[in-house]
Amino acid sequence: MERKKLGAQSIRFAHPPILLASANVVGKKEGEGPLASTFDLIGQDDKFGQNSWEKAESEMQKIALNTALTKAALSTSHLDYLLAGDLLNQCISSSFAARGQDIPFLGLYGACSTMGESLLMAAMLLDGGFGQYAAAVTSSHFCSAERQYRTPLQYGGQRTPTAQWTATAAGAVILGTEGEGPRVTGCTVGKIVDKGITDAANMGAAMAPAAYETLRTHFQDTGRSPSYYDLIVTGDLGKLGSEIVREFFHKDGVDLHHHHDCGLLLFDLEGQDVHCGGSGCGCAAAVLTGFLLDGIRRGKWKKILFCPTGALLSPTSTMQGESIPAICHAVSIEG
Amino acid sequence: MERKKLGAQSIRFAHPPILLASANVVGKKEGEGPLASTFDLIGQDDKFGQNSWEKAESEMQKIALNTALTKAALSTSHLDYLLAGDLLNQCISSSFAARGQDIPFLGLYGACSTMGESLLMAAMLLDGGFGQYAAAVTSSHFCSAERQYRTPLQYGGQRTPTAQWTATAAGAVILGTEGEGPRVTGCTVGKIVDKGITDAANMGAAMAPAAYETLRTHFQDTGRSPSYYDLIVTGDLGKLGSEIVREFFHKDGVDLHHHHDCGLLLFDLEGQDVHCGGSGCGCAAAVLTGFLLDGIRRGKWKKILFCPTGALLSPTSTMQGESIPAICHAVSIEG
Repeated sequence: MERKKLGAQSIRFAHPPILLASANVVGKKEGEGPLASTFDLIGQDDKFGQNSWEKAESEMQKIALNTALTKAALSTSHLDYLLAGDLLNQCISSSFAARGQDIPFLGLYGACSTMGESLLMAAMLLDGGFGQYAAAVTSSHFCSAERQYRTPLQYGGQRTPTAQWTATAAGAVILGTEGEGPRVTGCTVGKIVDKGITDAANMGAAMAPAAYETLRTHFQDTGRSPSYYDLIVTGDLGKLGSEIVREFFHKDGVDLHHHHDCGLLLFDLEGQDVHCGGSGCGCAAAVLTGFLLDGIRRGKWKKILFCPTGALLSPTSTMQGESIPAICHAVSIEG
Repeated sequence: MERKKLGAQSIRFAHPPILLASANVVGKKEGEGPLASTFDLIGQDDKFGQNSWEKAESEMQKIALNTALTKAALSTSHLDYLLAGDLLNQCISSSFAARGQDIPFLGLYGACSTMGESLLMAAMLLDGGFGQYAAAVTSSHFCSAERQYRTPLQYGGQRTPTAQWTATAAGAVILGTEGEGPRVTGCTVGKIVDKGITDAANMGAAMAPAAYETLRTHFQDTGRSPSYYDLIVTGDLGKLGSEIVREFFHKDGVDLHHHHDCGLLLFDLEGQDVHCGGSGCGCAAAVLTGFLLDGIRRGKWKKILFCPTGALLSPTSTMQGESIPAICHAVSIEG
């Protein structure tokens, strides 16, 4: 059997799966941001025709998946696997979206790292010989997340300067073993890192050490320097978390000048009042499935390292005074 | 590349991963049940030295994983992947248990089907050539689940006749590409099935159609009849759900006389006041890692089809009047 493991935590795919198509659906606010032209559908009332925010979020996943399938000229019956997850308790956005779609389903939980986790696991299943087509889908919704994690929207709570704005967004990618498109050439599976941050309104700081560890391990495992990539994109560390990661690398004598962050790309930080930037599973998903993959397809970048980060806390763990475990997975995508 | 996919939803592993070791940890009530002799550790106060039930559940996962590693004469540093999930919001039992263990982590959510999902994904990663060792871990805790899904324990709510008892239990298996032990020879990845059951106190009925669909597909995909297996074990349909599955097969003219259910095996239904039986991710996990794998190792059975079932609801979806999506994954284990 071909050796696919590189170093401690990384994989080089023997037959890199192809990103055949991608699609996204976002809310009104996201559609007013700088990436507006990269979205397939911008909702006008964040309800998407449903009578609850939770159902709206499921609907966004369904639309994203079916739009991506249409672009790939495939139907749900072609899919060997659907890998999906979200932020809601018991991941109901994903399981209710998958209900009635008739696709073998594998539910994931990686908080805001889910687009990375689902993408690398889908790639592993295809490269491992377990099927021909797989979909990776994730979502978040400002309204469903805000009332679950923080306070009812009607309460009008003041946001702290380090807070991020949960994106109302869903993204879907279709991977195949054959066809045309960018390829998933490798990945680094993250470990849980917890440096003792207990402030649930400062998730950038909680997740930055996980991003640093995964990136450092990726470069070590693959023998690559950051300059191998045209763009290194974390998601969603936001403003503060991104500064921390660059500072960590600066201390190592490594310049991460071509680093960007999905949380900073999705919104206009000055004009849209989102404090430290965007967050939520849908943030990295919407940026990947639009801006990033479009850029690779158009030749703007050849090699991207996509590194979504997740804060694995819950309101219960926060109320019990626990610090925030975080994770980051890195996925190499090459045009 | 070798063809590993069988039919619509099934896999035959090219190099069947080996179940090198397994371990479990259960609460006091589970330790008073019929499977007492098959548990590695029976807790006396369900707290396992912690000051909250959530932390106790994490502690149980840690003990189960480390006991299994010790039995396999391995350490955490040998593990290429840890695949884990649980029932708590944002799966905190698993991520807090993995914190500090320094293992590449992939979080899953499959409700009570998680032992099946983690086991089949771990087997796929090893058979796919992505590593040498992987661990699959899951847990549930009566007290953390009860207050999250239903009412505070102190409330003393009356249980309905169809209710099941969430097991206080954790199970861990260590899979390897080489060594001695039972093998994971194949699997069937389930689809989400929802037949409209809205009663969250009748999860057996909600999950039974998913178990039936996965089993039927497994036999169709593999060309096997139920008699290929010495034992077919669902988990955790309980009394009512098990009857429904056998009735479905009876209507098809198929006799499932050697079917059993983890929810019925874990407790003494008459003597332990658990109504329809056990449930929770830890139920199937504790039965697999003790009774079932011990039985295969001792030659009691040669071939088992392990089919944990999950009800993918949340308290929010129930309060919004939604029916219960369910899933079942089947894993073939051969001695």
